[in-house]
Amino acid sequence: MNKLHYLLLLYLFAHCGVTLEATTKDPPNIIVIFCDDLGYGDLACFGHPTIATPHLDQMAAEGMKLTQFYSAAPVCTPSRAALMTGRLPMRNGMCSNKRRVLFPDSKGGIPATEITIAEQLRQAGYATACIGKWHLGHLQPYLPTNNGFDYYFGIPYSNDMDRVNDAPKNRLAFFKPKVEYWNVPLMRNEEIVERPANQTTITKRYTEEAIAFIQSKKDQPYFLYLPHSMPHVPLFRSKEFENKSLRGLYGDIIEEIDWSVGQVLDAVRQSDDAKNTLVFFTSDNGPWLIFNEQGGSAGLLRDGKGSTWEGGMREPTLAWWPGKIEEGSVSRQVASTMDIFATASKLAGVKVADDREMDSYDLMPVLMGGQGDRPALFYYRGYRLMAVRAGDWKMHLMTQNAYGQPDPVTHESPLLFNLHIDPSEKWDVSKENPEVIAQLQGIIKTHKKNAIPAESQLEK
Amino acid sequence: MNKLHYLLLLYLFAHCGVTLEATTKDPPNIIVIFCDDLGYGDLACFGHPTIATPHLDQMAAEGMKLTQFYSAAPVCTPSRAALMTGRLPMRNGMCSNKRRVLFPDSKGGIPATEITIAEQLRQAGYATACIGKWHLGHLQPYLPTNNGFDYYFGIPYSNDMDRVNDAPKNRLAFFKPKVEYWNVPLMRNEEIVERPANQTTITKRYTEEAIAFIQSKKDQPYFLYLPHSMPHVPLFRSKEFENKSLRGLYGDIIEEIDWSVGQVLDAVRQSDDAKNTLVFFTSDNGPWLIFNEQGGSAGLLRDGKGSTWEGGMREPTLAWWPGKIEEGSVSRQVASTMDIFATASKLAGVKVADDREMDSYDLMPVLMGGQGDRPALFYYRGYRLMAVRAGDWKMHLMTQNAYGQPDPVTHESPLLFNLHIDPSEKWDVSKENPEVIAQLQGIIKTHKKNAIPAESQLEK
Repeated sequence: MNKLHYLLLLYLFAHCGVTLEATTKDPPNIIVIFCDDLGYGDLACFGHPTIATPHLDQMAAEGMKLTQFYSAAPVCTPSRAALMTGRLPMRNGMCSNKRRVLFPDSKGGIPATEITIAEQLRQAGYATACIGKWHLGHLQPYLPTNNGFDYYFGIPYSNDMDRVNDAPKNRLAFFKPKVEYWNVPLMRNEEIVERPANQTTITKRYTEEAIAFIQSKKDQPYFLYLPHSMPHVPLFRSKEFENKSLRGLYGDIIEEIDWSVGQVLDAVRQSDDAKNTLVFFTSDNGPWLIFNEQGGSAGLLRDGKGSTWEGGMREPTLAWWPGKIEEGSVSRQVASTMDIFATASKLAGVKVADDREMDSYDLMPVLMGGQGDRPALFYYRGYRLMAVRAGDWKMHLMTQNAYGQPDPVTHESPLLFNLHIDPSEKWDVSKENPEVIAQLQGIIKTHKKNAIPAESQLEK
Repeated sequence: MNKLHYLLLLYLFAHCGVTLEATTKDPPNIIVIFCDDLGYGDLACFGHPTIATPHLDQMAAEGMKLTQFYSAAPVCTPSRAALMTGRLPMRNGMCSNKRRVLFPDSKGGIPATEITIAEQLRQAGYATACIGKWHLGHLQPYLPTNNGFDYYFGIPYSNDMDRVNDAPKNRLAFFKPKVEYWNVPLMRNEEIVERPANQTTITKRYTEEAIAFIQSKKDQPYFLYLPHSMPHVPLFRSKEFENKSLRGLYGDIIEEIDWSVGQVLDAVRQSDDAKNTLVFFTSDNGPWLIFNEQGGSAGLLRDGKGSTWEGGMREPTLAWWPGKIEEGSVSRQVASTMDIFATASKLAGVKVADDREMDSYDLMPVLMGGQGDRPALFYYRGYRLMAVRAGDWKMHLMTQNAYGQPDPVTHESPLLFNLHIDPSEKWDVSKENPEVIAQLQGIIKTHKKNAIPAESQLEK
């Protein structure tokens, strides 16, 4: 190679940017399996005694269990918005102190200015599909197909919305749920194809759609986002899973999701590029404890869905990538669903936009068994910063139990827990560690400089 | 073979009994690794987020996790007596409503009339060793060497006994423990070889002794009982494990036990009959919650050591037998430490004595992935029958929280929980299930006919 050629090559390297990196790195397929209201303690591999999850256990045995992995919010809409954008919900307005999620009468949704992970990966030539519950806006501009997804099949908001007038009142409708109590639409792309959605077969149909999508992608990398509607109440499962679990109805639901994971992984295993597929399994927030036996378990963690205690936001998370992620490994690094954005972008060779604040850190060092890059984790409830975690330490500025406390309690003197020693948040050690409090207050101060709240989409 | 020979052979078969069965069945080595106050949620494979237990996780991956396995009592002495004899403590007097365990001033111990699992296996030619904490009587007749063990190395009672007068008072001694605060003897066979026992290296020394025992047994089946002194407070660990665990001092302790399990299994793997060794890992009772961060976690289970809520008696249990027990299997059958007696007896081909009531059921059907034989489980606190479990159902006649309740509370109308659906015992469903209450009362009635309390050894 002469000097001119060499310079030309350097020039090409310098200017091809994204495309070159993407093609040279053989970008992997990426699948995100996302549950709804799954508790930290609800999988056998995370310690549940009576829910059988052999496929998830096998996914853990073949991959990595992440024991300190968080959703970005303790409820649905903001949690999903953050996963999609790699940004805290307060930055894009997908939260509120008044309405916690989007409802069928909401006019808002994910702003067009946001870059979703699907839009991001499309830049590198990925095929993209969203199969499952969206909940980032059901009006036309906000639908998945207008936010980076080639294909959409699923329900646009929660499965307990659109309750019909003559359904049983209050929680009675959930105890013996019937499909017709909720008039939730099932959509394909931008069309309603079934109403009410037959929730009984919904997990099975999501699974079939996911497999068909995987099998159809022969020569193109893909991003598959598979947000299950379950185990959010009302609980529905296929005939094959009726009374299958020792854990009752809730267990049946988890065991059908477990089956689904097995089916999806089998489709990947049988595909040509099985060795080039990264799969995440996690959930949007903790278990909905007010539903008693129809809600899940946060295991040893405190409280559940809706609260910024650990049970509300820490999720049972698995990562699987045969040949890359060490089999049967465990990572105790602090990480977030928001980090999937940076990770996927890096793997696909797409630059993360530098015109906005991001809350996303590349997970590859963690997935390779090393230290993560994330310096801190912020626990928001709506626009309120409730708590912060850095390293072992979590400081609560405010707390609000998921039920029994209608208003948040401000702690003039913040609470402090060492989550490594005390994952159940039992023993406040703020008095003994004033220097840690000061350090965490400093982290918050820095964070707040660049934490500009956007107008709420949930109040529209 | 002529007819005479055939009849002679039949005669031999009929009369050789024990010995013939034992030799023809190639009796396996049996190892029981027993912790002290380990919580249901304290192992990574049972869901702990920050305690690293790679060797126990591997033991689970190579064997079976038992998620509904119980000790026979919520405190030390009765629990161990039941493991040793396959009988409820109230049958042999190894319990009391006044003193919960044996103390250094106790005069009693395991009665000579009891048949220990070591005595039982000796009949089939087993070598036997007890390495660790005994706590079934420290006076000469009660020591392991007078109860079926060829060899003993360990402490005769709990590591927090014999506190010296000038040690810090109350719980202060535990918070920054020093070896010299407790004058506990370390024994070899019937001799005291060190006093105070250097608890810092005790887990390491038990491990070395266990390995030496395994390696010395070339042509003889063996029974190794390895009851660790830890994680009972005061917590001590070797230099190599100082500040090793994210979980702090308590985590260091568990991670040293995990290392020990790895060492023991490695010794088995390297031995000639690796394929013929059944290993159990479990504990005597739940976590001692009053010690806050120096106590363990019962995970999603309610309460801990001392109580008959699930957290007091359900243990994180593993069974390992390469080539026999299916790798990575999970059993949700209800079983007990008492069942190890019948299991070992059957495997060794030794008949269980029929002159006494037994509470032990052969575990082999469970270990082979099938249904267990155990019809019910009785939760005793001293001589008081507190609760009963049959199938999914647990009925509490009395409850007493491990702390905050100095006296037991009798429930005129018993509490009922479905442990499959509600392992955390949150929702009393007695009102909705009177027929289950009646059925469980019937089981208790039958049980009581043959539950004759023996004189207490703990009040002597």
